[in-house]
Amino acid sequence: MKALVIHAAHDLRLEERAVEPLKPREIAVRIGAGGICGSDLHYFHNGGFGAVRLKEPMILGHEIAGTVASVGAEVASVQPGDRVAVSPSRPCGACRYCLAGQQNHCLNMRFYGSAMPFPHIQGAFREVLVCDAVQAHKVSGEVSLGEAAFCEPLAVCLHAARRAGPLLGKRVLVTGCGPIGALCVLSAHAAGAAEIVATDIADATLAVVQKLGIAKTLNTAADPDALKPWEADKGSFDVLFEASGNMRALTGALAALRPGAVIVQVGTGGDFTLPISVLVAKELELRGTFRFHEEFATAVQMISSRHIDVRPLLSATLPMDRAVEAFQLASDRSKAMKVQIAFG
Amino acid sequence: MKALVIHAAHDLRLEERAVEPLKPREIAVRIGAGGICGSDLHYFHNGGFGAVRLKEPMILGHEIAGTVASVGAEVASVQPGDRVAVSPSRPCGACRYCLAGQQNHCLNMRFYGSAMPFPHIQGAFREVLVCDAVQAHKVSGEVSLGEAAFCEPLAVCLHAARRAGPLLGKRVLVTGCGPIGALCVLSAHAAGAAEIVATDIADATLAVVQKLGIAKTLNTAADPDALKPWEADKGSFDVLFEASGNMRALTGALAALRPGAVIVQVGTGGDFTLPISVLVAKELELRGTFRFHEEFATAVQMISSRHIDVRPLLSATLPMDRAVEAFQLASDRSKAMKVQIAFG
Amino acid sequence: MKALVIHAAHDLRLEERAVEPLKPREIAVRIGAGGICGSDLHYFHNGGFGAVRLKEPMILGHEIAGTVASVGAEVASVQPGDRVAVSPSRPCGACRYCLAGQQNHCLNMRFYGSAMPFPHIQGAFREVLVCDAVQAHKVSGEVSLGEAAFCEPLAVCLHAARRAGPLLGKRVLVTGCGPIGALCVLSAHAAGAAEIVATDIADATLAVVQKLGIAKTLNTAADPDALKPWEADKGSFDVLFEASGNMRALTGALAALRPGAVIVQVGTGGDFTLPISVLVAKELELRGTFRFHEEFATAVQMISSRHIDVRPLLSATLPMDRAVEAFQLASDRSKAMKVQIAFG
Amino acid sequence: MKALVIHAAHDLRLEERAVEPLKPREIAVRIGAGGICGSDLHYFHNGGFGAVRLKEPMILGHEIAGTVASVGAEVASVQPGDRVAVSPSRPCGACRYCLAGQQNHCLNMRFYGSAMPFPHIQGAFREVLVCDAVQAHKVSGEVSLGEAAFCEPLAVCLHAARRAGPLLGKRVLVTGCGPIGALCVLSAHAAGAAEIVATDIADATLAVVQKLGIAKTLNTAADPDALKPWEADKGSFDVLFEASGNMRALTGALAALRPGAVIVQVGTGGDFTLPISVLVAKELELRGTFRFHEEFATAVQMISSRHIDVRPLLSATLPMDRAVEAFQLASDRSKAMKVQIAFG
Repeated sequence: MKALVIHAAHDLRLEERAVEPLKPREIAVRIGAGGICGSDLHYFHNGGFGAVRLKEPMILGHEIAGTVASVGAEVASVQPGDRVAVSPSRPCGACRYCLAGQQNHCLNMRFYGSAMPFPHIQGAFREVLVCDAVQAHKVSGEVSLGEAAFCEPLAVCLHAARRAGPLLGKRVLVTGCGPIGALCVLSAHAAGAAEIVATDIADATLAVVQKLGIAKTLNTAADPDALKPWEADKGSFDVLFEASGNMRALTGALAALRPGAVIVQVGTGGDFTLPISVLVAKELELRGTFRFHEEFATAVQMISSRHIDVRPLLSATLPMDRAVEAFQLASDRSKAMKVQIAFG
Repeated sequence: MKALVIHAAHDLRLEERAVEPLKPREIAVRIGAGGICGSDLHYFHNGGFGAVRLKEPMILGHEIAGTVASVGAEVASVQPGDRVAVSPSRPCGACRYCLAGQQNHCLNMRFYGSAMPFPHIQGAFREVLVCDAVQAHKVSGEVSLGEAAFCEPLAVCLHAARRAGPLLGKRVLVTGCGPIGALCVLSAHAAGAAEIVATDIADATLAVVQKLGIAKTLNTAADPDALKPWEADKGSFDVLFEASGNMRALTGALAALRPGAVIVQVGTGGDFTLPISVLVAKELELRGTFRFHEEFATAVQMISSRHIDVRPLLSATLPMDRAVEAFQLASDRSKAMKVQIAFG
Repeated sequence: MKALVIHAAHDLRLEERAVEPLKPREIAVRIGAGGICGSDLHYFHNGGFGAVRLKEPMILGHEIAGTVASVGAEVASVQPGDRVAVSPSRPCGACRYCLAGQQNHCLNMRFYGSAMPFPHIQGAFREVLVCDAVQAHKVSGEVSLGEAAFCEPLAVCLHAARRAGPLLGKRVLVTGCGPIGALCVLSAHAAGAAEIVATDIADATLAVVQKLGIAKTLNTAADPDALKPWEADKGSFDVLFEASGNMRALTGALAALRPGAVIVQVGTGGDFTLPISVLVAKELELRGTFRFHEEFATAVQMISSRHIDVRPLLSATLPMDRAVEAFQLASDRSKAMKVQIAFG
Repeated sequence: MKALVIHAAHDLRLEERAVEPLKPREIAVRIGAGGICGSDLHYFHNGGFGAVRLKEPMILGHEIAGTVASVGAEVASVQPGDRVAVSPSRPCGACRYCLAGQQNHCLNMRFYGSAMPFPHIQGAFREVLVCDAVQAHKVSGEVSLGEAAFCEPLAVCLHAARRAGPLLGKRVLVTGCGPIGALCVLSAHAAGAAEIVATDIADATLAVVQKLGIAKTLNTAADPDALKPWEADKGSFDVLFEASGNMRALTGALAALRPGAVIVQVGTGGDFTLPISVLVAKELELRGTFRFHEEFATAVQMISSRHIDVRPLLSATLPMDRAVEAFQLASDRSKAMKVQIAFG
């Protein structure tokens, strides 16, 4: 079995690995599609991010879908031939956070393709993945495995949407229109937002979101005053999804938020310097959002029914042996939104 | 100007009325379409409902849309020729509930076509309606006045959806598939429900909801055990919209609700006898919902953009001079979902 | 070891039982005080309640505190000599509700002294109780074991208070002033209610609550119009804790609740007939509340610090060999609020 | 009538002013006590704060209580001789925020003693204040006017406590123990917090809070690791009230907050630089809080009943003609918590 292994910055290799033996509640999945995520790109370009650093070779990848190849003796939920999206999230189910329904804060989380713990948690960009049967969710026959591989990033954004509170009838701003920002636009629409405005500093990215037909798009690099119309009477937007991880996107949007508005910080980065008196005087709420739990199943339902149609976000799919090229394409915002790798 | 006036049960007349003079902040609207609501039918068949009784002739109607004919001196928000949905809700803006953002509980509400206060509040089934400019909301050029006249009942259901809390990814049951139940199905879908099941005791009604393509429909008269599959492990549904006003619809659904589920009681009726020990042991929440306020504007946005498409719910439109026939048709659930009257 | 065993209605016996052997994570607690609860009284008088019926002899009791006698090999949280309140709630920690933080709805709950499952779950009215170390919570040196035995019913009421949402500054009505109603008064006060009114139909009960000095008390049997002053302008109370389990207490309070008020139904009973149109028109929320989970630890903190002082609620303590007398006294609302049994 | 007028930094004068004539819904209040607030000190020391600058002489003061001297023709709520706390908050009652129940964000707010608008809103440090009758709330006979003058800052903290969500049973951290921090401690206790820890960098301030007997106090200047015990397993506190306005107080507390914790930012200041990745990964919520509305009435109830006893926070009361001395004392954290001025 072949797997995509990162050894150090810019050192991504296709290597042979053994397939693990199957335990009674496990299944083997022949991976069909794997989406390249921002954290994969950080490992590829920088060997990590912040305090998280590669200390040993690690298989990348956590946005995956495939076909069940075989199942363990006690597995009844899926059978060989089923097409599944696989959740990369594996909480322990026993710590205080798991027992409080906050599995995304599990004290013993083993999330695929993460160098946060050591030994690192090996990822899922590989031909055959052995995983717990509960991680695998059947998708409908209508959707492709490429669409199914969007379940993970969509789950992140559905969780972010939940963190925002009810969105029905709300006026929503999304700053940053990469794959996560675009999926936030789709999630906010699916949750009933009545008006959505999306900003970015790259026209190519905005064009993809514009085509969705559900959001007004603005280039805030080209027009720094683009949000002015929403600033009257202390501001208009009920909710901001900050998906750029860029401090200026956040501070530049504050005047357009109405008193009491909720900011869901999806993008992450270094230090943000914020005018605290504005946050206080307008009673804004800045909420972090991190990964997901039950939203993975929701993402599977939403994608299976095309209640959320992710197809416009897929820029290109490259075969496994052109993985380096795929990573370079995924890094170029002028050419690509989401890039996936085809395995097997 | 002609208006539809109810004098007593089964005594509905088309009568000549004077057009009121226009105040500076008022507008005159040439009504195009008016939807017949359940309360209109109660006045028509029974002369009222519960303690609410006709004590003088009253113009019926509160689901209306039309074209602006003229505007008062201080009106800037609309102009002659604009196509508008008109909100029948007129809170005072000064009582303790209005100042708490609970305008639907206004102590001095004047809601069109209501015999609750005396003198009664005259309704809007008339050729020309003079109203406050703030009641009128422009609709997009794409939608018909018939669609626009759905804004009022849709606002009721969007308010009900808000009363339910966040619906994104939730499993929703709707009992009762009349116009309000059907609009609850559409609202729950628009708010991101992942699975919707709708029940009724009439196949004709269920067939209309089935055609929406977003809900599984069940006839609980034909199959009293239809909800059994959702009853395992203490129940499945996160939210129930009870839109039938029938006690047995509510009690029959309790076993299918998961612990902590929310019941939004939209339909109203007489006394309901409930097994309080079930409500206690499962920590269910039974929430009343009543009319709407800011949701009218949301309904206008949702219908204007066809984010919610109400067209499949319109059964028939009859001219003003066939109003009695329209009321009879609207009363026949085997033939009609929503019936509207065309004015002018 | 002696234990209080109910064989059938009015057949309560003090019997000899063996002490279970200690597992590594278990402890043995020498029970000091046990409070008689309403459900204990139901078994004593009627052999059960509703569908719950005694099918075999069962040790009663679940409101308990004592002194640690010995600890298993792996126990570090307590040591012999520690004075502890013991939670009777034992969720499985593995079902879907436990993993959603809803342990009180555990599919495999083993709650002390309950005839709901068969074999019945034996209770804790006994000289020595062997339990999991995690069930035992140390209490401060200041409080008596009698006070500590209030942790369980206080936990029920703290959970009910949480179900009500924030109470700070709220106007609260409590109907029913038995032990649970009285603890709801204390809990609402501890949560910051600005005004509390408590009603009952028995003067003796009301007198105990009156002495707490934090609530106005009203006898609604003596004066059926006692709540009239709170009925103006659609009602005054933000929250109702219905702790009587009596339908008329609930329906009689509806007019005094403001629109949007929350009713927390703590008491349970048979069928309740409710005017659903009032619940709808006022958008009331009727919420069941059932047992507790993390609130047991909170109750221990509140009682240990006397932030909540339960001493005024303890009517009498009788020795184990006068248990039948204790049960009879506890059944007489004119003489007793909470009655406890002293063991050992 | 004499009034305390600030002309420029360090230029505070006692000046003669005319008493305004009384309108039908107004009353004249003979001010008894006025508390010096942080914003008063900013005007006194710096002539303003941030962008808010004195542009004309302004009477200071907004924490006030007194005795009704006379009432307008249409006033029924109070009568001469009544002792009242007076709310300095005067929202317009007609803007979009007032009609949404967000009066503290009123577009036309006229808050006493504020140089934010021009002409400035004159304050209430004066012998006789003419105000709307609705601003005046009767206090109980038990409490002094000095206690009553705490209603305003207590209202700020009760609003902050509401912004935190339910506090019953929660673990709360308060950073900054000036008057606002100390009132946050009292408010959190009144709302049912089970454990409260308060930090400051001044021992004198901590000593006052320590005497309240409801919080553990820590000097984080003396011991930078003081919060370490709460940092295990991703943190312990459910809620942080940041009342220092100092960025390091906030950043130094993040490790002690559990995932999903709420930070209520009460203190204000310049720019805060925050590690956004921590806020994201722990899903913290940073919520601004600003002034109050209905909480003023709650503060009156809480102080009138001594449910919240503010007396330990009053450091000194000086007569009007020693106002400059009072302002200097109020500026010295080693000597004073709250300083009040006695008028008339």
